[in-house]
Amino acid sequence: MSKLKNKDNLAKEIELIEKMVAGDQLSLARLISVVERESSDTPELMRQVYPNIGKAFSIGITGPPGAGKSSLVDRLTSIIRSKGITVGIVAVDPTSPFSGGAVLGDRIRMQQHYLDEGVFIRSMATRGSLGGLPKTTRDVMKLFDAFGKDVILVETVGVGQTELDILEAVDSVVVVLVPESGDTIQTMKAGLLEIANVFSVNKADRPGADQLVVELENMLHQGPKKEGWQVPVIPTQAINDIGTSELWEAIAAHRGMLEETGQLDTKRRHRRRTELIETVQQRIVGRLWSLVQGDDEFSHHLDSVDRGEIDPYSAYINILNDQKLLETWLAKLSEATS
Amino acid sequence: MSKLKNKDNLAKEIELIEKMVAGDQLSLARLISVVERESSDTPELMRQVYPNIGKAFSIGITGPPGAGKSSLVDRLTSIIRSKGITVGIVAVDPTSPFSGGAVLGDRIRMQQHYLDEGVFIRSMATRGSLGGLPKTTRDVMKLFDAFGKDVILVETVGVGQTELDILEAVDSVVVVLVPESGDTIQTMKAGLLEIANVFSVNKADRPGADQLVVELENMLHQGPKKEGWQVPVIPTQAINDIGTSELWEAIAAHRGMLEETGQLDTKRRHRRRTELIETVQQRIVGRLWSLVQGDDEFSHHLDSVDRGEIDPYSAYINILNDQKLLETWLAKLSEATS
Repeated sequence: MSKLKNKDNLAKEIELIEKMVAGDQLSLARLISVVERESSDTPELMRQVYPNIGKAFSIGITGPPGAGKSSLVDRLTSIIRSKGITVGIVAVDPTSPFSGGAVLGDRIRMQQHYLDEGVFIRSMATRGSLGGLPKTTRDVMKLFDAFGKDVILVETVGVGQTELDILEAVDSVVVVLVPESGDTIQTMKAGLLEIANVFSVNKADRPGADQLVVELENMLHQGPKKEGWQVPVIPTQAINDIGTSELWEAIAAHRGMLEETGQLDTKRRHRRRTELIETVQQRIVGRLWSLVQGDDEFSHHLDSVDRGEIDPYSAYINILNDQKLLETWLAKLSEATS
Repeated sequence: MSKLKNKDNLAKEIELIEKMVAGDQLSLARLISVVERESSDTPELMRQVYPNIGKAFSIGITGPPGAGKSSLVDRLTSIIRSKGITVGIVAVDPTSPFSGGAVLGDRIRMQQHYLDEGVFIRSMATRGSLGGLPKTTRDVMKLFDAFGKDVILVETVGVGQTELDILEAVDSVVVVLVPESGDTIQTMKAGLLEIANVFSVNKADRPGADQLVVELENMLHQGPKKEGWQVPVIPTQAINDIGTSELWEAIAAHRGMLEETGQLDTKRRHRRRTELIETVQQRIVGRLWSLVQGDDEFSHHLDSVDRGEIDPYSAYINILNDQKLLETWLAKLSEATS
């Protein structure tokens, strides 16, 4: 009964893909929700979406809170739209639920674009995603691509592991800094120097901006030049729409380089590889884990730990030495996957 | 040879434990470094540490960036030290490497305590920890406990999943808000209402502070009272050392309640259980994964995806349907664990 219902759902979702590819915004929104639920249908859905992707160019915009990323995204969107290009925006803030309010506030500034059919904005929820955020973000990007968006902007705060995983999936990374974000050494520590394809020094009218530009340029010249690309540092004032065209041109130049040198293909090939690895990891390894959790013998170990009869680390070492228990788990996994 | 070397290392590390338990700060610092490297020795080390833990009371301090958490930790440390109690501090900022500078700056304010033998401060690195941060933080807390610290303060920014995992390991959670962090609805969304045992409304001299106190109190009174504990809301001005004694008293009252009702024991029992689950998950499931990654057949699938002959999701579905491949993987796992 429940299996029938699942099949029914899947059929409906596949219908949504057809409608979405034909340009239906509502179907796109619905599919995003399906993907966000991390449903077991996702691999099958993505398999159906796959033939329709590969045309969109994706740009990640990252930087510290308060750097003005949302304003920059807003201005870039205006520039993109003025060229008749369509855009999908994913705003991800996995780091802090506190800034939920700010993100919402920022989105209000985007209001002009809400009325524009050529712009689709999605803010990604952070809580409850249980580590799947990078994967979900990438799936949403694929949906935007299959829908026919020319450009995808992905806005993230910070560069923890989650954000680095997200940024691995974009073609071009813009790192936004402000004079107050200060120490360029921090930038290096944060690994931003390695991932940035373009730097924007925003709020460039503030004291310290010129110095930050010079410091970044010095750091960039000291390191080895990245495969035919000298990372540019663009001073911007998103609020006053100053430097934003130059920023867009720098991104476009990076795209041109990626396409001409074949690096774009290499990047995307690597990305497909990562996708297979992650899908297998999530689903097969995850299945072993759920088996172990439901196992009686394991419950017995847990209860001993619970009662304080043994410490958790001794219990773990006992489990590792219990060859019979491990074999039982493997047999169960074999059963479950057959 | 390498196995011998490992045994040698382990013997040295166990020697460090003896010295640490006897009060040697340098051995403590070295063991923290071992634990931070997430070495395979960790379960054995923790097994040896375990008999020495359980005396420390741990307090989590969390809140948005700029709420003044570090100043509060500084003042609380002074209060704790004035009572002759020793303290270990773990400052964790997994969310943003950008704030690394700020954390460093904050730590400078703690300078007075650096000279105090009764205080041990450790800032946790964020990059490269690959999701193991909550586990590493808990291990460091155990080392502090075994070393003999009476109180452990854990300072974290934000409440993403990583921070929630960290806060699960403390006995008492203080959530610090400031009038500017604004919307109490955000607080609810962020799940802070559920995890807070004490609220501190810091920078309480600023406009909106009184209102925030009232709003929080209203929200707290609407919800069900938590097992014999009415979460207090304490206005503080850490910078001026106002309200900090009241905050400490509120924490002490919460501790008293936990001890009297037996909730402290329940919490810690639950924590031991979680520890076993996580250790098994990390190590056994991780082992399966490393086997899959090194498998020739899987490499073959990866290469096909790489060359664009098949999309990653179709490849995944093929793997799932390849019973023989799955059996090979399980056989290998069985071999590796024997």
